[in-house]
Amino acid sequence: MKEIEGGITSVPGFRSAGVACGIKTTGAKDLAVIVCDDVAVSAGTFTSNKVKSAPVLVSMERIKSGKAKAIVANSGNANACTGEQGIKDAKRMTELVASGLNISPELVLVASTGKIGRKMPMDKIENGIKLALSGLSYTGGHDSAEAIMTTDTFSKEIAVEFDIQKKKAHIGGMVKGAGMINPNMATMLCFLTTDVCIEQSFLQKALKSAVDVSFNMISVDGDTSTNDTVLILANGKAGNSPINRLDSSYEVFLRALTYVTTSLAKMIAKDGEGATKFIELRVRGAKTEQDARKACHTIARSPLLKCALFGEDPNWGRIMSSLGISDIDMDQNKVDIWFDDLKIAQNGISTGFSEESAKDILKKKEYVITIDLKMGNAKATLWTCDLSYDYVKINIV
Amino acid sequence: MKEIEGGITSVPGFRSAGVACGIKTTGAKDLAVIVCDDVAVSAGTFTSNKVKSAPVLVSMERIKSGKAKAIVANSGNANACTGEQGIKDAKRMTELVASGLNISPELVLVASTGKIGRKMPMDKIENGIKLALSGLSYTGGHDSAEAIMTTDTFSKEIAVEFDIQKKKAHIGGMVKGAGMINPNMATMLCFLTTDVCIEQSFLQKALKSAVDVSFNMISVDGDTSTNDTVLILANGKAGNSPINRLDSSYEVFLRALTYVTTSLAKMIAKDGEGATKFIELRVRGAKTEQDARKACHTIARSPLLKCALFGEDPNWGRIMSSLGISDIDMDQNKVDIWFDDLKIAQNGISTGFSEESAKDILKKKEYVITIDLKMGNAKATLWTCDLSYDYVKINIV
Repeated sequence: MKEIEGGITSVPGFRSAGVACGIKTTGAKDLAVIVCDDVAVSAGTFTSNKVKSAPVLVSMERIKSGKAKAIVANSGNANACTGEQGIKDAKRMTELVASGLNISPELVLVASTGKIGRKMPMDKIENGIKLALSGLSYTGGHDSAEAIMTTDTFSKEIAVEFDIQKKKAHIGGMVKGAGMINPNMATMLCFLTTDVCIEQSFLQKALKSAVDVSFNMISVDGDTSTNDTVLILANGKAGNSPINRLDSSYEVFLRALTYVTTSLAKMIAKDGEGATKFIELRVRGAKTEQDARKACHTIARSPLLKCALFGEDPNWGRIMSSLGISDIDMDQNKVDIWFDDLKIAQNGISTGFSEESAKDILKKKEYVITIDLKMGNAKATLWTCDLSYDYVKINIV
Repeated sequence: MKEIEGGITSVPGFRSAGVACGIKTTGAKDLAVIVCDDVAVSAGTFTSNKVKSAPVLVSMERIKSGKAKAIVANSGNANACTGEQGIKDAKRMTELVASGLNISPELVLVASTGKIGRKMPMDKIENGIKLALSGLSYTGGHDSAEAIMTTDTFSKEIAVEFDIQKKKAHIGGMVKGAGMINPNMATMLCFLTTDVCIEQSFLQKALKSAVDVSFNMISVDGDTSTNDTVLILANGKAGNSPINRLDSSYEVFLRALTYVTTSLAKMIAKDGEGATKFIELRVRGAKTEQDARKACHTIARSPLLKCALFGEDPNWGRIMSSLGISDIDMDQNKVDIWFDDLKIAQNGISTGFSEESAKDILKKKEYVITIDLKMGNAKATLWTCDLSYDYVKINIV
């Protein structure tokens, strides 16, 4: 497997366009359309928030058929908490794309991100969709990736090439992240394309597995959005014989897909709102994997710890304190903690480490915090960032 | 019932002193001793964090006897994550007080607050205890309240006088709060005194009830400390016949106690680290009280919402989004939301309220956010604050 240039349109058979249609008042790109030349096998995962945006509700319904040909997405307005009008508007977006492509609206998926509780500016969106459809291209992936950005500071895309049954296959992906990022989907939209030939139920299974160890293991601020959506379209053009059981071909695909989602997930954590640090948090020695994941998430949600990390202060007590509220099986007298390779705590008390060495590590832009609970053999890894003045500044409005 | 001057020493029969002994490098007061002239009936509640400080472990053990004569508390060092040495040091603090008062160490309770993971400077503490014991006075409550402050910007105390069985009775209290404040105790120490005559099991029951609707219903940042402690000593000097059942005398006492703990809890939320707003959050129409409390806590834990409140931005979508992740019984199409008396959302969508009127409310230093879930009749109230630049600044170290 190797990384290749580009993103979603680096996969044969996919066109895309990203345009500015005035939903964002800044004039930045705010509407993207992705089209598969053929009808693709589709799968998706959606926010666990009980308050779901209109496009999430519509796409959750549509994904059940397992088939799709296009995705339309906008930034600048979340179309959430908009009632029946919101549902109508989300459906209208799919109808506009469908009529331009001369296909059924049932084959179009929809996603939105932006401010909650505002009516969609449908006149602008109508123009935007027309503009995007007329600009579709086999190199349009980058424009699309820009069109779904909100407070992101850089666009996020990746593509990989790998061999499956001796055929060349590809996966491309783009994502937006930044704030409101936490378990079970974030304010994140992620669109993935692939030319692998795979049955729908295995595509859905692989997507869920990949999302569980990537997007569900990043945390910026512990908030989970109403709009989170991950969609994948598979057009089968790679020519492999259909993946329809958990064999080595499935494993090859899953590994490539996980690489793509993990890479995109890390980009989100690196670009967390106001983030100055990128931290890999490893919990091992947990009794169960669920405990390991819980510990990761509780620690990553501590504003106190995240402020200390911003301040480059080796305040490991805040890690201990977060562990203690994470509702996992633990013994405070067993916990070991490292910053990179420097052991900070052993059996729950300070190792008498050098504060200077610890600060040298915390001064870096990227480092690893490892926690060994010594209760069992389960482990988990999460990627997070610090909490800075700029997080507050970005979220004042 | 009426509020009277002072705090814990406004109750007859209690002496106290607060001194500076150098645990804090600033030279501020950092050690307090509270002494009851007689042996008092005692009760306590402690942090739910599985990582518990040494003084919490010692006091949890001691409180079982239901009797106490003194409390020793320090700020500047939490004596948490300090292993066996920490336990020895906490016990040593009680022994030093006990030997000065010529009583058994079993009658002395201990509490600490400050940085986690550092050995206690026992030489300084020894001097501090000597100094405090020699300075005990019936007007020393205020000095004590100052001695337990950490990042608090003002000392927090209250006293009330009320009639019970036609006798004058009193409750005095002091608390420290500021950061790491959340459900099930905060980095908060609270010491309460009363002259009411009450059996231990009823004192414990009343304390738990009062704490549940006060200290357990404030939230600054969603972190729960390793050191949270609430202790009450009752010396029986009011002369009422002992409260030993759930009768009207118990109700009178509980009402006064709840008034005291709620007043102190609100002071903590008002003095939240970096707080510029004091917000009363009311959730009603919940299916169960547990749902109402959960909803309050999840909303109050959202950094996104708290930044918006700091920015005086009526971003009610962040309330909806938090409700959706709070794991309660809800229907997004039923939710109503108010800022003070201004209805912002009805049945989950915007009322088309005036942004200007909403901003006028959010500009105030104190206001109420009300949420009606329309699922049932249960309700809860929580007090919280916003998340400002200064929260980050304070917690960098």
